[in-house]
Amino acid sequence: MPIKSGKQYIERIDRQNINIRYKGELIQGPLSKHPAFQGIIQTQAELYDMQGEESYIEQMTYPSPDTGERVGLSFLPPRNAEDLQKRRLMMELWAKRHNGFLGRSPDYMNTAIMSLYTAADILEEHNPKYADNLRAYYRYCRDHDITLSHAFIQPYACKMSGQQDAAEDTIAAKVVEINDQGMIMTGAFMMATQGATCEEMLVFPSPSPTLFHDVNPTAFAFAVPNDLPGMTFICRESYGAASSYDYPLSARYEEMDVLVIFDHVLVPHDRIFYYGDEAYAGRLFGESRFHTHIAHQIATRYIAKTEFMLGLLESLADEQNVGLEPHMIANVSRIIAYLETFKALRLASELGASRDTFGYFVPSAGPLIASSMLFPQFYPEMVEMIQLLGSSGLIMIPSEMDFHSDSGPYLNQYLKGSTTEAWDRIALFRLAWELGAGSFGGRQTQFERFFFGNAQTVAYRMYNQFEQHEQLRNRIQDFIAKNNTSSQLDGLEDQA
Amino acid sequence: MPIKSGKQYIERIDRQNINIRYKGELIQGPLSKHPAFQGIIQTQAELYDMQGEESYIEQMTYPSPDTGERVGLSFLPPRNAEDLQKRRLMMELWAKRHNGFLGRSPDYMNTAIMSLYTAADILEEHNPKYADNLRAYYRYCRDHDITLSHAFIQPYACKMSGQQDAAEDTIAAKVVEINDQGMIMTGAFMMATQGATCEEMLVFPSPSPTLFHDVNPTAFAFAVPNDLPGMTFICRESYGAASSYDYPLSARYEEMDVLVIFDHVLVPHDRIFYYGDEAYAGRLFGESRFHTHIAHQIATRYIAKTEFMLGLLESLADEQNVGLEPHMIANVSRIIAYLETFKALRLASELGASRDTFGYFVPSAGPLIASSMLFPQFYPEMVEMIQLLGSSGLIMIPSEMDFHSDSGPYLNQYLKGSTTEAWDRIALFRLAWELGAGSFGGRQTQFERFFFGNAQTVAYRMYNQFEQHEQLRNRIQDFIAKNNTSSQLDGLEDQA
Amino acid sequence: MPIKSGKQYIERIDRQNINIRYKGELIQGPLSKHPAFQGIIQTQAELYDMQGEESYIEQMTYPSPDTGERVGLSFLPPRNAEDLQKRRLMMELWAKRHNGFLGRSPDYMNTAIMSLYTAADILEEHNPKYADNLRAYYRYCRDHDITLSHAFIQPYACKMSGQQDAAEDTIAAKVVEINDQGMIMTGAFMMATQGATCEEMLVFPSPSPTLFHDVNPTAFAFAVPNDLPGMTFICRESYGAASSYDYPLSARYEEMDVLVIFDHVLVPHDRIFYYGDEAYAGRLFGESRFHTHIAHQIATRYIAKTEFMLGLLESLADEQNVGLEPHMIANVSRIIAYLETFKALRLASELGASRDTFGYFVPSAGPLIASSMLFPQFYPEMVEMIQLLGSSGLIMIPSEMDFHSDSGPYLNQYLKGSTTEAWDRIALFRLAWELGAGSFGGRQTQFERFFFGNAQTVAYRMYNQFEQHEQLRNRIQDFIAKNNTSSQLDGLEDQA
Amino acid sequence: MPIKSGKQYIERIDRQNINIRYKGELIQGPLSKHPAFQGIIQTQAELYDMQGEESYIEQMTYPSPDTGERVGLSFLPPRNAEDLQKRRLMMELWAKRHNGFLGRSPDYMNTAIMSLYTAADILEEHNPKYADNLRAYYRYCRDHDITLSHAFIQPYACKMSGQQDAAEDTIAAKVVEINDQGMIMTGAFMMATQGATCEEMLVFPSPSPTLFHDVNPTAFAFAVPNDLPGMTFICRESYGAASSYDYPLSARYEEMDVLVIFDHVLVPHDRIFYYGDEAYAGRLFGESRFHTHIAHQIATRYIAKTEFMLGLLESLADEQNVGLEPHMIANVSRIIAYLETFKALRLASELGASRDTFGYFVPSAGPLIASSMLFPQFYPEMVEMIQLLGSSGLIMIPSEMDFHSDSGPYLNQYLKGSTTEAWDRIALFRLAWELGAGSFGGRQTQFERFFFGNAQTVAYRMYNQFEQHEQLRNRIQDFIAKNNTSSQLDGLEDQA
Repeated sequence: MPIKSGKQYIERIDRQNINIRYKGELIQGPLSKHPAFQGIIQTQAELYDMQGEESYIEQMTYPSPDTGERVGLSFLPPRNAEDLQKRRLMMELWAKRHNGFLGRSPDYMNTAIMSLYTAADILEEHNPKYADNLRAYYRYCRDHDITLSHAFIQPYACKMSGQQDAAEDTIAAKVVEINDQGMIMTGAFMMATQGATCEEMLVFPSPSPTLFHDVNPTAFAFAVPNDLPGMTFICRESYGAASSYDYPLSARYEEMDVLVIFDHVLVPHDRIFYYGDEAYAGRLFGESRFHTHIAHQIATRYIAKTEFMLGLLESLADEQNVGLEPHMIANVSRIIAYLETFKALRLASELGASRDTFGYFVPSAGPLIASSMLFPQFYPEMVEMIQLLGSSGLIMIPSEMDFHSDSGPYLNQYLKGSTTEAWDRIALFRLAWELGAGSFGGRQTQFERFFFGNAQTVAYRMYNQFEQHEQLRNRIQDFIAKNNTSSQLDGLEDQA
Repeated sequence: MPIKSGKQYIERIDRQNINIRYKGELIQGPLSKHPAFQGIIQTQAELYDMQGEESYIEQMTYPSPDTGERVGLSFLPPRNAEDLQKRRLMMELWAKRHNGFLGRSPDYMNTAIMSLYTAADILEEHNPKYADNLRAYYRYCRDHDITLSHAFIQPYACKMSGQQDAAEDTIAAKVVEINDQGMIMTGAFMMATQGATCEEMLVFPSPSPTLFHDVNPTAFAFAVPNDLPGMTFICRESYGAASSYDYPLSARYEEMDVLVIFDHVLVPHDRIFYYGDEAYAGRLFGESRFHTHIAHQIATRYIAKTEFMLGLLESLADEQNVGLEPHMIANVSRIIAYLETFKALRLASELGASRDTFGYFVPSAGPLIASSMLFPQFYPEMVEMIQLLGSSGLIMIPSEMDFHSDSGPYLNQYLKGSTTEAWDRIALFRLAWELGAGSFGGRQTQFERFFFGNAQTVAYRMYNQFEQHEQLRNRIQDFIAKNNTSSQLDGLEDQA
Repeated sequence: MPIKSGKQYIERIDRQNINIRYKGELIQGPLSKHPAFQGIIQTQAELYDMQGEESYIEQMTYPSPDTGERVGLSFLPPRNAEDLQKRRLMMELWAKRHNGFLGRSPDYMNTAIMSLYTAADILEEHNPKYADNLRAYYRYCRDHDITLSHAFIQPYACKMSGQQDAAEDTIAAKVVEINDQGMIMTGAFMMATQGATCEEMLVFPSPSPTLFHDVNPTAFAFAVPNDLPGMTFICRESYGAASSYDYPLSARYEEMDVLVIFDHVLVPHDRIFYYGDEAYAGRLFGESRFHTHIAHQIATRYIAKTEFMLGLLESLADEQNVGLEPHMIANVSRIIAYLETFKALRLASELGASRDTFGYFVPSAGPLIASSMLFPQFYPEMVEMIQLLGSSGLIMIPSEMDFHSDSGPYLNQYLKGSTTEAWDRIALFRLAWELGAGSFGGRQTQFERFFFGNAQTVAYRMYNQFEQHEQLRNRIQDFIAKNNTSSQLDGLEDQA
Repeated sequence: MPIKSGKQYIERIDRQNINIRYKGELIQGPLSKHPAFQGIIQTQAELYDMQGEESYIEQMTYPSPDTGERVGLSFLPPRNAEDLQKRRLMMELWAKRHNGFLGRSPDYMNTAIMSLYTAADILEEHNPKYADNLRAYYRYCRDHDITLSHAFIQPYACKMSGQQDAAEDTIAAKVVEINDQGMIMTGAFMMATQGATCEEMLVFPSPSPTLFHDVNPTAFAFAVPNDLPGMTFICRESYGAASSYDYPLSARYEEMDVLVIFDHVLVPHDRIFYYGDEAYAGRLFGESRFHTHIAHQIATRYIAKTEFMLGLLESLADEQNVGLEPHMIANVSRIIAYLETFKALRLASELGASRDTFGYFVPSAGPLIASSMLFPQFYPEMVEMIQLLGSSGLIMIPSEMDFHSDSGPYLNQYLKGSTTEAWDRIALFRLAWELGAGSFGGRQTQFERFFFGNAQTVAYRMYNQFEQHEQLRNRIQDFIAKNNTSSQLDGLEDQA
């Protein structure tokens, strides 16, 4: 079964029998009809449809090496420069479609599982069965176009608990039993973004260290369908609602975050990717070049989002007749400079790509980490530009219903722009409000800031991969060593 | 009739027959029971009750010079240093109660109308009747403890329209007819914050200049009850809901902003404060020291809010066991430094107060403008501290309903803190979310940024009131003029 | 002997027989004639003269309680609010005279020694002789108007050495012998600013901890004349030269920093203030409120310097006809806001003053620390404003000699301003250059940044003195505790 | 005559008979022996020598199309991608050698004259003779390896004067006479960096507009040797001196800025590039892609300088044992991120290169302008990192002479580092001082900030070349246009 259509995506999501709670109540009926989910499901469906459109299919898919059917290009493990470019082009098409707002458009996890797959060999020595499981699972996802989410981060108390003692009493995620059918696992995960609007979930926590057990019960990775017995999804509140006039962003791009509880969930043997030895957590991430492959996808998203912000800022400025004022030129040019920067860094990562130990072609890490250091600081700056430009216009904005009510004529008369109708002007301000002052925008800012971990974590990643520390220090040392001494200059001094 | 109680406040609001629309529908039934208004009305009622409490009545009220009954101290026109201190103490008590979140706690408009009253004399030459009207209205507000809002700002298109031509076709707010009963007025105003939760509204737009009319129809000021025929209030959407667990701030402090439409509203003659001569708009604001009196109230609010932010930041840091990390000490100390600054500036404004031309005692403007320049830039900085500290904890937060549902035990188990229960920990994070990433917080940031106009407007205000420009430039000129010349130094040079 | 005149100051400095080296050579002849020192000595002489001028003597001096002769007011230990105001007024007069550029104008160390004196009682239990010494030394300085410097900071290697082992081999400053005549001391100190242009030096290092000795040889404080045998002063290079046209700031305000070496210097018994017990280092600083008294003087200096920067920025803007452009108004207003801030903080410190355990009246620490947190970050910002405004005009500037040469007519013709002569225009740009791009300015920026220790040190000081941490956290806790619950709101919800 | 050697360069400079004044006095004797010039001349000589070294000659030169002899590669007009890469490699070799500190290393003006040459065709319609002159001059420079400076900017009063009236009385640079031998020109130019250490000068002012003359006397460009009668060079003061221990940067990289006066200088006919028609000023710059070619050279310099700053920061951190502290990792990583950025932007400019109307291959402007927007803001940030890290260690530093004097043993004992000798430690701090607090560093910061004009000028350049304004605004408009309306959602709303 090849790439799926939007319709197939919706059917599969709706068919799932998942235990999901919103504001304390179990969601009944198809998820695709629920106001908190219908927008994002619709948006993802469009992405899936796009893959199969005649004008895109060549650029967005490739023939599965196993089935020959066309599968998503973001599953392609890159072997050379051309593969990297193909991947980028595919991701770019999706990113432009969702304007960079989907942190979990399908290519994100497609890339993630592809990346882990490329390092499956290291599991051979651990347990050849696990290596086979990982490879088989990757192929399954690719050939069935599985929509995947991931659960990596545990709640604070679980992490703390694990650090103190990885033994029985911990509330850290752990395997509590192994039996014929698989392993039984218990624990909780924060922030599985789009957890409920995917088919399956990759679970891969950071293990707690243990001194007391030969087999570390907190060290494991696996993938399961979303509707296994024992799984519970608890949603945060939705920030928008169905009207895309009132909530132009959240009505389309609201990626629900969920808290996922595993309460004695049975994970089948063939879905386990490693177990018991905490060393493999770090190795799988590191040797698969997980962060680098992912960062290549994200850089593409950054570019699409920056373009959207730029377009919005200029539209808002024009609407207020200030588009050519010096401070606007300064702000717009600053965004253009960053747009050039993100494009250039992505390009540099591709041109600096090199082959990893398994023969795959991996983008250069440095430019991509630079990109992931700069965007989290630049994104809030763009948001601030919009806030300052939108001013009180981001606050006193009526809603779609107001236009359709008796108040409509007043709004049409008084809220129009210089050349625009009130309905269009307010639509623009509602967009600016969602991004600059609404809850959707608030989450986006947090999301971008902490996407790759906090600033210090990313700084260490950059510091550690840099190979010129010694060389540049030596250059300074040589520079100083070549200082002349005054004795050599005696002849000159006399003339001073 | 003296100060009113909270109960009386609610009764008066509910008794009004105001034409108010929320999401396109006319609000029926008492406003104090409507989810979008119940919280703020309750909070204001508490403020009014406070005035009458035995422990506060001495500090918060004074005897009306007209009736002898106790009236609110924020109505007191200051005549000396002691009056200023009394006013500050009163405002401080209210500000601490609402933690600085109410931009329109009643003392704000009480101070505004008091300030205009102090300059009523200038209207004598314009029309003695208007001077009487203003004085009488002030006394009415004071002696009946009227809750007042104001409408100053017109929508963009109205301002533009007025600038081009203040004649018949303009959509700028204007008087369309004068008759026996009063003047008939038409126009629209943005951002009447708390417009609907007040009893009356002061309307005082910036007039458009006109070359064509002896009497400028856009130049006027008046005050009316909220429920005159022809008035329509259109609300923005509410950001919260009734549960103060889920929305701890908006459930208490959501000051609804409204768009107010005046459609041929008849303003009685005795409620007109000036009309026809645009010069009086600027004079009334300037000579009443409107901005300065108001800024004294606002500085007090800044202090209470900064204290709240400080307490929240420290609580959030403690909850995550990072309260003593160097960067937290740095952030906390930075807030303390600003707290000291706002306190010091308010103090300096009082100690530097001087008598105006009408004999009232006005705080020094410089320190207060400084305060209104610094807070709009420092407030977003504090918000950012909370965002960075709250991290993804501001996103994945369950709601009150989740705790009360089947998911409750999971939440209690997994979301607890080091020493706190999940219920309390999440309550803290929900508070941080509302301020740092929710719509309520988004509006607060915009509100603080533009409270006194945009940054450039406030900069001009500061620049213009500063009296030492010349003196300091001269100091530089004198400094340079005293440069010695090398000839004087001949003896010295030889030794160099 | 009462306050001294400028002439007396110069005579005393020149009379000293100090071992001082500049660029490797022993300075011979009177220091007041040496190009690297003549400017600052002249400036300090003017300050001393000022004290005795008829128009100032009342404000700048008071009768010595011991001799009845008039002594400098900055020696006055404040006993009440009036004393604090007198002190501030005196310091303000000096600060305006030197435009805030002298970090070590005499009132700085006068205040320092006064502050230590107020806590002399704590030495009684240590050794009554030391308490007497300190009191006597303070009286000696006050009654002879001694110009004092201080040496507190040891070079990096000395600090490191001391930390590892305070025993014999350390290069940390230490007492190597006690004999009949006094104690023999060896060590090195960085950054004795104005060390060579003072008469005496207060030496008060941070002791190294020791586990091995009952008497800690690194724990001591004393004061000595500058020309004891064994003392060597090593200067940094001077940044300016004699021409105050070319170097308007350094020709007047160049406070030479010196490295002071003590090589077996005999400190007389009656000049020792404590010895052997490291506890007294911290106690003397803490209980004398050293940092607070000093910060009161410094706040005064900040104000004078901010005024100078403001005058310079406006002069430079006017010279280039941009004084009324919006971004200049913004910058100027920003400086005014900070000027108001520093004034207000100083005022608040005085009004919040309280009596210490010895009965002296000490300004409130909070506002002063705020001031010392804000200035180090705001000063570089003002410098940047000057750099950006001065642009390349800070680079291509001719010197006084050029004006006096054959090139003079060219300069006069081509380098004039719109309304100014070239000579005056260039004088202004040279001033801006020294502050914004010259070595003098570079040192000033470093000096202001690290005046009170690095930013983190100051942050801890602020954090530790703040007494409301608990109270504000409790306010948050109470706020959350008062969250209503949805059950109470059932009636309301139905209407939502 | 091909590339020259360092020796030849020095000989040519010394042989010139230029009228140059330093601190009011005519410099006599060879310039290469004068303390203010010997360092930079030596450094440039090394660059010239490098070109001819066996290991570099292939990468740094190419055969002259006219003579077949090897000439400097920075003269090569790029015709394809390979040419661009060759140019970049050549410039990189020089930039690394001078660590990015020479704003006027010879490749800068070589590139400038090459760029003008590529657009010589546009002069054909103006005057074929001028087109020939420009081409011939380019060939002359290339084949004789002429070291060129430029004079573009006139003093403030000259610009003002020109704006008001370009007629006889103006002091703007202008042609005062044309005769058989050439044109006689008078005027003054600021900031001819390295003007005196070059052989010839390209003069190309912005013309003043004129309404009164058919032939605009302020519109012209030409090139002349430095020692024509009537030319006077007036230097700013030198910031360093001969000792590269004390002034490690200025002793090597001090590029003297000069004010150049032309007082009735006769410019031969064959050295005139355009005259009389102001349109050609803008066209020559624009159509030659002057800014873009130059920016390619500068981006290369930025990279070398950023590497130097990074090496210095890490060296300084290590010297103080703080290299692995979190805030240092953060700072170092930030520099690495920018290093990646500048490299990526340069790469993107090459890969995005395209053919101009004359058939030359021009790098893409966008990424290069981005680079020239980011560096002026990032450079001061790096300097600040060094200032904050160096702390007071940038102030109290002895000089080379001190080490060689009697004080030497004290310095060796007390100023050593943890693992370094005092001599080496102080050498490092002197380097940090020159960059972070000395006059050399002050000029560098100004120079980098205004290299390409002020920030607003560069912002306009970026804004104007961006071609997607319309496209991105349309994307927003389309986005809004696709808003669904609530009527479509009726079915959904019911479930909300």
